[in-house]
Amino acid sequence: MSIEYTAIKLVKRPETTITPDLFEVVRLTTPELEDGQILIKQTHMSLDPAMRGWMMPDRDSYIPPVELGDIMRAGGVGEIVESKNPAMPIGARVQGLIGWTEYAVSNGDGLNLLPEGIPTEAVLCVLALPGMTAYQGLMNVGKPKPGETIVVSGAAGSVGSMVGQIAKAEGLTVIGTAGTDEKCQWLTEGLGFDAAINYKSDGLATKLAASAPNGVDLYFENTGGSVQHAVFDLMNAHGRIMVCGMISDYNTLTPSAGPNWIPIIKKRLTIQGFTMPDHYDKIPGMMQAMSKYLMEGKIKYRAHTLHGLESAIEGINLLFSGGNTGKLMVEL
Amino acid sequence: MSIEYTAIKLVKRPETTITPDLFEVVRLTTPELEDGQILIKQTHMSLDPAMRGWMMPDRDSYIPPVELGDIMRAGGVGEIVESKNPAMPIGARVQGLIGWTEYAVSNGDGLNLLPEGIPTEAVLCVLALPGMTAYQGLMNVGKPKPGETIVVSGAAGSVGSMVGQIAKAEGLTVIGTAGTDEKCQWLTEGLGFDAAINYKSDGLATKLAASAPNGVDLYFENTGGSVQHAVFDLMNAHGRIMVCGMISDYNTLTPSAGPNWIPIIKKRLTIQGFTMPDHYDKIPGMMQAMSKYLMEGKIKYRAHTLHGLESAIEGINLLFSGGNTGKLMVEL
Repeated sequence: MSIEYTAIKLVKRPETTITPDLFEVVRLTTPELEDGQILIKQTHMSLDPAMRGWMMPDRDSYIPPVELGDIMRAGGVGEIVESKNPAMPIGARVQGLIGWTEYAVSNGDGLNLLPEGIPTEAVLCVLALPGMTAYQGLMNVGKPKPGETIVVSGAAGSVGSMVGQIAKAEGLTVIGTAGTDEKCQWLTEGLGFDAAINYKSDGLATKLAASAPNGVDLYFENTGGSVQHAVFDLMNAHGRIMVCGMISDYNTLTPSAGPNWIPIIKKRLTIQGFTMPDHYDKIPGMMQAMSKYLMEGKIKYRAHTLHGLESAIEGINLLFSGGNTGKLMVEL
Repeated sequence: MSIEYTAIKLVKRPETTITPDLFEVVRLTTPELEDGQILIKQTHMSLDPAMRGWMMPDRDSYIPPVELGDIMRAGGVGEIVESKNPAMPIGARVQGLIGWTEYAVSNGDGLNLLPEGIPTEAVLCVLALPGMTAYQGLMNVGKPKPGETIVVSGAAGSVGSMVGQIAKAEGLTVIGTAGTDEKCQWLTEGLGFDAAINYKSDGLATKLAASAPNGVDLYFENTGGSVQHAVFDLMNAHGRIMVCGMISDYNTLTPSAGPNWIPIIKKRLTIQGFTMPDHYDKIPGMMQAMSKYLMEGKIKYRAHTLHGLESAIEGINLLFSGGNTGKLMVEL
């Protein structure tokens, strides 16, 4: 039985900001399934900063861009509503790259079946790409030791809020930066960060130094900009910087200058970039580790939920304006 | 029997450049040796870019600065001329931090006895700190694989010329940058580099790109400046940058900006600073490895020898003007 549904295609590439004319809303009809295929009805779709990179043709990017005319790429969770695949029964929940669409046909490749009992919002907040990114960057790249001090920029974001909570669970002193006082209050009072600093307030460098009297051992970089320079000056010898995002520079044509490299020598720093497609093989193990934190009550999460597929078109910009208050997602 | 000798003390700290008024030439007399001590007559003293850092009080530096009024620090080779230490017989050659002095008393700590048959200039060029630094940075930090492409800045310097030759011995494609055509010719014709580029000539970025058609996997950073930015743009995915020196910025009050960090994410780069005092325990093994290259004829060296202790005072600036043609040292 074919079903009519809505999907959103990418039809133009962004110059700087993401505008509605980049997208085309289309109505499609589900096809007859072939053997091995399933039909997924998406219930929640994730909106992530990486999406802007996926819209751009860039030979240096870590995954190919979305082709013009294709349905825009996104992670999400859905329910299997038809199945010709015995490993993927009707009624099961799956997670994976479903796309900006209400329905999708798949042969199951790249999809994970979800256990029962974990709310879908928790899946997208904790067990999806942002949580895996946080775990990989902090634990496998940064290799933190109990007692060390970490600064997390973009700490109220989907990745940053997970990084800080994992770091607390691992016995670190955790300082976050965010762009509003309300976010900072949530970090300290809601998530148990030791300190949170509004990077838009005066005296960022002084406040950071006061919050980190023993210096900074680890810096989890999500933003770039003024926070990067202020934290760089506070790094301790043998410090490690995990470079995950540079959201303050993604929407500019002239990215800001980085710090001079002399302190990299003097302090024997390691600065390391990482992206998740290099580490997909570790996801099952990382999901187990994150589920354990979740069950132990060590990880809280906050969803910022939009409603209806088309709300993504304007809503994605909340990520770049800092207007979201929690992991941004669309409930379909 | 006491001997009168010359030594040079640091009496003032540099503001930018190293000037003669920073030093005081003094005449001293060797003391009576105590049990366990030796008297060393220095024959060759090394002059190295790191010395400028040793002159500066800087809480971030990796070793304490030379105190004002103390004899200036330097590595060197000397002959034991008196000994009350049975492990260190008269006539043996030793290498270590002897200082800007004709004679020094030591209990042997931190000194290495040298094997016979290796010329003293080879010791300072290949088996001393610059060679160890080259080996540590390339092999232990960079972890090169045969077939990869490396760019070495400051390639005609004491560290860079060793890095390039070890890299050739390990099967890499090696591109060097240097500041004169004569140095570039020495790199390609004398040392077997695949390409060498005068960074002061026009079209640095274009020339680098043409020399590295498959991109750059490893960058051994000795200089900073324009070469840093040009190479950074050519780095391949999973590239590694070993940050050893930033000589173009050491003598300026306002160090130049580094590159923006977005490519660190996209290309999953690792940028790592290192300094030798963290790795002194590895020196015996690294000396063996470098001696092997030397015996196999895989490492050539070129000394730029000044004469007389006091020639160091003006001569050290050759390192910062690029005027030296080989490992700078003083024959006493």
